[in-house]
Amino acid sequence: MDPYPSNGETIVALATPPGTSAIAVIRLSGDEAISIASKIFKGKDLTKAPSHTIHFGSIRDGERILDEVLISLFKKPNSFTKEDSIEISSHGSPYIVKEIIQLLLKHGARLAKPGEFTKRAFLNGQFDLAQAEAVADLISSDSEASHQAAMNQMRGGISEEISKLREQLVNFASLIELELDFSEEDVEFANRDQLRELINTIKKMVTKLIQSFHLGNAIKNGIPTVIAGKPNAGKSTLLNVLLNEEKAMVSDIPGTTRDFIEDEIVLEGVSFRFIDTAGLRETKDKLEAMGIERTRQKMSQASLIIYMFDVNNTSEKELIESLDELREMKVPYIVVGNKMDSGKVFKEEFRNFDGIAYISAKRKEGIEELKQRILEQVNIKSFKTGDAVVTNLRHYESLLNTKENLNKVLVGLDTGIPGDLLAQDIRAALLNLGEITGEITTDDLLGNIFSKFCIGK
Amino acid sequence: MDPYPSNGETIVALATPPGTSAIAVIRLSGDEAISIASKIFKGKDLTKAPSHTIHFGSIRDGERILDEVLISLFKKPNSFTKEDSIEISSHGSPYIVKEIIQLLLKHGARLAKPGEFTKRAFLNGQFDLAQAEAVADLISSDSEASHQAAMNQMRGGISEEISKLREQLVNFASLIELELDFSEEDVEFANRDQLRELINTIKKMVTKLIQSFHLGNAIKNGIPTVIAGKPNAGKSTLLNVLLNEEKAMVSDIPGTTRDFIEDEIVLEGVSFRFIDTAGLRETKDKLEAMGIERTRQKMSQASLIIYMFDVNNTSEKELIESLDELREMKVPYIVVGNKMDSGKVFKEEFRNFDGIAYISAKRKEGIEELKQRILEQVNIKSFKTGDAVVTNLRHYESLLNTKENLNKVLVGLDTGIPGDLLAQDIRAALLNLGEITGEITTDDLLGNIFSKFCIGK
Repeated sequence: MDPYPSNGETIVALATPPGTSAIAVIRLSGDEAISIASKIFKGKDLTKAPSHTIHFGSIRDGERILDEVLISLFKKPNSFTKEDSIEISSHGSPYIVKEIIQLLLKHGARLAKPGEFTKRAFLNGQFDLAQAEAVADLISSDSEASHQAAMNQMRGGISEEISKLREQLVNFASLIELELDFSEEDVEFANRDQLRELINTIKKMVTKLIQSFHLGNAIKNGIPTVIAGKPNAGKSTLLNVLLNEEKAMVSDIPGTTRDFIEDEIVLEGVSFRFIDTAGLRETKDKLEAMGIERTRQKMSQASLIIYMFDVNNTSEKELIESLDELREMKVPYIVVGNKMDSGKVFKEEFRNFDGIAYISAKRKEGIEELKQRILEQVNIKSFKTGDAVVTNLRHYESLLNTKENLNKVLVGLDTGIPGDLLAQDIRAALLNLGEITGEITTDDLLGNIFSKFCIGK
Repeated sequence: MDPYPSNGETIVALATPPGTSAIAVIRLSGDEAISIASKIFKGKDLTKAPSHTIHFGSIRDGERILDEVLISLFKKPNSFTKEDSIEISSHGSPYIVKEIIQLLLKHGARLAKPGEFTKRAFLNGQFDLAQAEAVADLISSDSEASHQAAMNQMRGGISEEISKLREQLVNFASLIELELDFSEEDVEFANRDQLRELINTIKKMVTKLIQSFHLGNAIKNGIPTVIAGKPNAGKSTLLNVLLNEEKAMVSDIPGTTRDFIEDEIVLEGVSFRFIDTAGLRETKDKLEAMGIERTRQKMSQASLIIYMFDVNNTSEKELIESLDELREMKVPYIVVGNKMDSGKVFKEEFRNFDGIAYISAKRKEGIEELKQRILEQVNIKSFKTGDAVVTNLRHYESLLNTKENLNKVLVGLDTGIPGDLLAQDIRAALLNLGEITGEITTDDLLGNIFSKFCIGK
């Protein structure tokens, strides 16, 4: 199936980040990739070299030598795009890269659009749409969990689940359509109870995928976590303790931390996006009250709340009030009693509260236990075993539509509507699923997806 | 000759700029490069694959798949370092790069120091020291001229000149040393006049190279150019006219302009570093006077001064004073009469001055002619024909030392000192030249040179 054959125009782009470095890689793909490269390359005859070989030589603009390079040669269909492809590994000088690309343009290539290489790979059947989307997720992954989710998806995890669902639905549709062939005889080949059971099974699978999106989205974008509490409970100290330790861990290879988001912490491969909040207290100050209202709003939108209080400066009554407020938010939370270091006697009254994590942020005591508590709150166990997790909003929406159409089928079965109407709803659900893997696509959809890729991918 | 054999330790580094992109290239070189890569690569058996081939597969840490990659294989001595080398082309995710590098470290590689790949290439005889230094210059080149100078040097331009000089000096030395063998017989095999002629020829070649450094340094770092003149002469307007036009020219390929210096203009491949100055006028304001003093200082240090005046608002007397001041600076200058657009009648009095470039910065008139005048002032003609140009301060200093020792030889010839003393001075000059190409090196010298390279090069 290849409804969108690439037109073979040869496209070119820098595939490595811009900037000065040891090497830069310029990528060229299309019918003329090899012949265009040959025009500017002085070295082995590329048109006669076998695929997957590397050739040293110089890039020349007439007599002028632009660079000494290595050229990697990929012959169709054994390339990423399944087209003839060339990778020019030049010195990592922005000036040289610009000159080489301009020279390639002069010889008939055109600049690639964002994601155009991956789009061609998809259109030429290298992988399905969900896998193509995973390439972008893989590149932007910044934790073990987000990396694992993208890798699963790129290697066909979601696609496999969707294909199972489609198969089941096709079975159902064929039963219904068999009836339609004999519609004048008013027979029911398909037992309605069995049909209902089948749809319920499919719906359960769809629902499971839909439910995985909450986790999947958190994995991909970082789990939004609010540290809240009264002023001076030690929120910033805790954040710093968590940040410093983990930041040091990720920055032992020079040059790799540049893209990490400030205040993002990776705990055992799961990234948490920590959100700073204003201290919570009664106030008559209008501005402060607005700040506190915003804090409450952020807490209710978070995936996890870490509620801190000062063990030496909080009454039982205050704590009960805070816990009541937390429960109302309907967000998982951890209550943390801080300042176990001040030397004062620990208040007997807190013994009545279960599940409080006692720490000293200042002395870095109890931090490991707190981390474990944080990790327990986000259920990533199931994910780590390799289950398919939906991380993509577009897939999530298609699954919601699938579920809606499956519900219509169930209502149809309950109300006994004719088979052809049932078949219509089932085809709608199949369409929804086909959008995920790209069996059904539109130019708009593809444009929308690939425009978010970087140039050169 | 290889006095510093590499110890074969396998080194690893990211060779492309840090950041998110389509692909990243991790470079591995050393005795264990292929065996270490084999431990983490699932795909073709790299130990059995031929050199200069590319292999698709996955990078694995036990069961965990880190990425799907292309591995390029280079077997010694057919690699940049002349060691076994591997290039891993992974997805351009900083997270993935970090994970792969850490995995390689775990399996016995160590992080490369800045320039260590190029240092190994030099130590293993891939090229001489001047050529190795040209690699760094090539990467940081940002104009046609600086690129050309670095390319000439990398391809052996300077090295060839130095080798010619060394050859001549060795001829001279062998004549002297022949005399020493017969010293007791007090014969002169070498005619003193012919020797003097030979040394003068060599000195002329050295002097030519030394003189090329002024141009070479300007080419490499941009020609420092000051636009000066009274307030409101139109200095900023001219700068903007020059900047806008050229900036648009270099930025038509996305992502390549990031490294260009603000206020640097490339005219026909030569970069000019324009320096903003305060307007020159008599003032009683202390701060302004200091600014003007700084301007004068910058003018005297520049390689070119563009002196602007308003044709409608300058008297003959004022212009004569300005020209006197300019001449005192002993810096090449161009006098520009601006505001030829105001509609007023052109003042007859300026007819008496030769060589003034008349323009309207506002209407962009006369700009092309001015550019040609600017280019004429910097003598890059000789350079463009491919002559060796010294761009490196270290080479320049070695050449100065060479010249000093040649002068000693000439004095020695004049005063008739014994042959063994002549031979000593000649050996000193040979040493100076050897430092340039790396026949004579010290660990300190090498450390100093390669520490300025980027990691991965």
